[in-house]
Amino acid sequence: MKQIGVGILGFGIVGAGVADGLLKNRELMAQRLGVDIVLKKIADLDIETDRGIEIDSALLTTDAKSVLADPEIHIVVESIGGTGIAKTFVLEAFAAGKSVVTANKKLLAEYGDEIFSAADANGVDIYFGASVGGGIPIVRVLREGLAGNAIVSMHGILNGTCNYILTRMENEGLPFDEILADAQVAGYAEAEPSLDVDGFDTAHKAAILASLAYGFHVPMDKLLIEGIRNLSGDDVKYAAEFGYRIKLLAVIMGKGNEVEVRVHPTLVPFDHMLASVNNVFNAVMVKGDLSDDTLYYGRGAGREPTASTVIGDVGDIAKNITAGSARYERGINIANDGKMVMRDTDEIISRYYLRLMVADKAGSLGIMTNILGRHDVSILRATQKEHGCDDTIADYVPVVMLTHEAKEADINQAMKEIYEAGVLCEQPVKLRMI
Amino acid sequence: MKQIGVGILGFGIVGAGVADGLLKNRELMAQRLGVDIVLKKIADLDIETDRGIEIDSALLTTDAKSVLADPEIHIVVESIGGTGIAKTFVLEAFAAGKSVVTANKKLLAEYGDEIFSAADANGVDIYFGASVGGGIPIVRVLREGLAGNAIVSMHGILNGTCNYILTRMENEGLPFDEILADAQVAGYAEAEPSLDVDGFDTAHKAAILASLAYGFHVPMDKLLIEGIRNLSGDDVKYAAEFGYRIKLLAVIMGKGNEVEVRVHPTLVPFDHMLASVNNVFNAVMVKGDLSDDTLYYGRGAGREPTASTVIGDVGDIAKNITAGSARYERGINIANDGKMVMRDTDEIISRYYLRLMVADKAGSLGIMTNILGRHDVSILRATQKEHGCDDTIADYVPVVMLTHEAKEADINQAMKEIYEAGVLCEQPVKLRMI
Repeated sequence: MKQIGVGILGFGIVGAGVADGLLKNRELMAQRLGVDIVLKKIADLDIETDRGIEIDSALLTTDAKSVLADPEIHIVVESIGGTGIAKTFVLEAFAAGKSVVTANKKLLAEYGDEIFSAADANGVDIYFGASVGGGIPIVRVLREGLAGNAIVSMHGILNGTCNYILTRMENEGLPFDEILADAQVAGYAEAEPSLDVDGFDTAHKAAILASLAYGFHVPMDKLLIEGIRNLSGDDVKYAAEFGYRIKLLAVIMGKGNEVEVRVHPTLVPFDHMLASVNNVFNAVMVKGDLSDDTLYYGRGAGREPTASTVIGDVGDIAKNITAGSARYERGINIANDGKMVMRDTDEIISRYYLRLMVADKAGSLGIMTNILGRHDVSILRATQKEHGCDDTIADYVPVVMLTHEAKEADINQAMKEIYEAGVLCEQPVKLRMI
Repeated sequence: MKQIGVGILGFGIVGAGVADGLLKNRELMAQRLGVDIVLKKIADLDIETDRGIEIDSALLTTDAKSVLADPEIHIVVESIGGTGIAKTFVLEAFAAGKSVVTANKKLLAEYGDEIFSAADANGVDIYFGASVGGGIPIVRVLREGLAGNAIVSMHGILNGTCNYILTRMENEGLPFDEILADAQVAGYAEAEPSLDVDGFDTAHKAAILASLAYGFHVPMDKLLIEGIRNLSGDDVKYAAEFGYRIKLLAVIMGKGNEVEVRVHPTLVPFDHMLASVNNVFNAVMVKGDLSDDTLYYGRGAGREPTASTVIGDVGDIAKNITAGSARYERGINIANDGKMVMRDTDEIISRYYLRLMVADKAGSLGIMTNILGRHDVSILRATQKEHGCDDTIADYVPVVMLTHEAKEADINQAMKEIYEAGVLCEQPVKLRMI
């Protein structure tokens, strides 16, 4: 059986997971793939710290160049992270005729073009399955399994930290700040949580998914991004009363040459598959023109799940090499660059959840409904609550509404006019629905 | 751009869906895959009937041999079905150096060995992604995405007809027979429904999944197969009261060199992802040793979803050919034939739902619980209902129990002894839990 050598650059969480998985399941993979994948070297500046896995110390080196120069290493796993030395090593690996597997979202987002072209130029493969969805093979599904589909839409829960916080907010009825603090202690949230809770991590992943689906560079500055930091426990509760759960979703929709990519807290009906995705789990629902709705669910992060996807990619490249050639996986296809444009966020069509703290006096509701009507916002359901949750706002009551489909610009204008009409004690809350 | 020609054998529902998809999304696929996939010919004895798709009549032929002889056709889609002429044509296609894509479960189940060896011998690919799960790329996921995982377990809803019937039984509180009759009228169930409702279709698919996961021929006669035909509406109702939904599951579990493959109605807790899979949708939850739980959901049948997966396979082969060689996809790896054995069904460990129609008199419960205890069956929850649902059995009341984990043989023996003790008016009902 042909042997294919693997070198790992970066012996952190992901690198250790990949090393452990490759060693543990080597025989199994050989049976399945018909090729013997052999871990040859692991390079890291620190080769002393115990990573909690059993590893032959002869495999460890502090000299990354020795990995890149080893003729018996055909595939390099980049698990250093960042865009500094990681980028240099990836390009050097290509130049040395080695294929690369990486989960480095940031590297791809910032230098994807350069990386993909360099792989092409050197006739080697670049796989990046674990950059979105951790243990969920969603990148592979989009590139291969659904390759025959025009993608109608994708709805994804792509950040485990946010989903964990939202699940606990709903189950325990506690406010965001309290759960976040708890999650930080438990290690489910970073000390600096902004990347997660403000939606940026989800947005980066959404951009990769949208690029894969529609074949163009998604300009990050055109995304609508709203995180969960300002989400009120009241809204979680009222949404549940209407039969909805609030999830931070990436919403990606293509129509003609326009693509919408947005990230925001979203009301999902209880009986929707995405509503069952709880705690740190991730999932992506993909609607293809042929496949119709499909959904992919799993752990979006973590040592072993990430290693699962990285090793799947390694296996693919090993098969490619065994078959006699790289398949020149072309990274993200950008054939539609210049053709696809981002839809203006004003043009978004959605159903909305609105909560307005309304003056508890005759005429208030009339003013509101008139303004909504004038802007073509039609109400599906509405409830006026007996009193506000904050007892200090005694003369105001929350009015909660679900709307039929409306245009974002119209909703925004209506909210502005209602606020300016002086019947509210605070800015209205607007959430989108699936 | 390199052109790869496709010929379709069999212009039925699947063949028409594949033709339509290949034509509609040709440009899109070319962009994504870097290869132009061209539909060259469609062969069927009947080329007159309108298939509801637009097709250039010059593509149609009644001469299948002309497809097999066409040097511009590199990939043959077999959508004839059955094991007669379909098998002959597949082998002839291989001999002519063409790769094959098929969704023909029966052909693979009965002649897999011969088919896979012939593909190998001719250096061509055989892909069969749509044989399980329709539009869900589960075969690809197991072969590639999760290739680095030892598979701990799989739980699948693999038959749309059964899931449709079960969903309606629960939602509408109607008995099996009534829903089945309705489903037959609506076209969701066959006139001869046995293949679906008695679990055989699910079992065939389970055997393919188990073979993929554990690398051996799964002997169909060693599977435990129970369908949904005898499922009572009472049990659907009582299960719901305990917080469970009943689904027909394929359960596949490997441990050491033993594999369990069973198909039966199963109680799934409401908050489990599989409980949200309703109507004709299918899903498979796969637990890998690295990935942990992952789930794949979509339409398990239908023209377009099946075409989606077939075309994904065509795309893969087209990339393989373009890269200069077939990758010799080895069908189902059977390296563990002779090593893996099926676990004896007596040895199954599960939690159980039991319903016993018990004589409404002092001492009955004591007799039952004594027997259960003697066989190491420990009760998790139990309810005695006020009266039986069938009012004619006036002196008997239903006792419904959930057990802790127990061994199938023990449960069976306990049920037998309880029945023989004369405290029941009918055989006990035993369902397994997830």
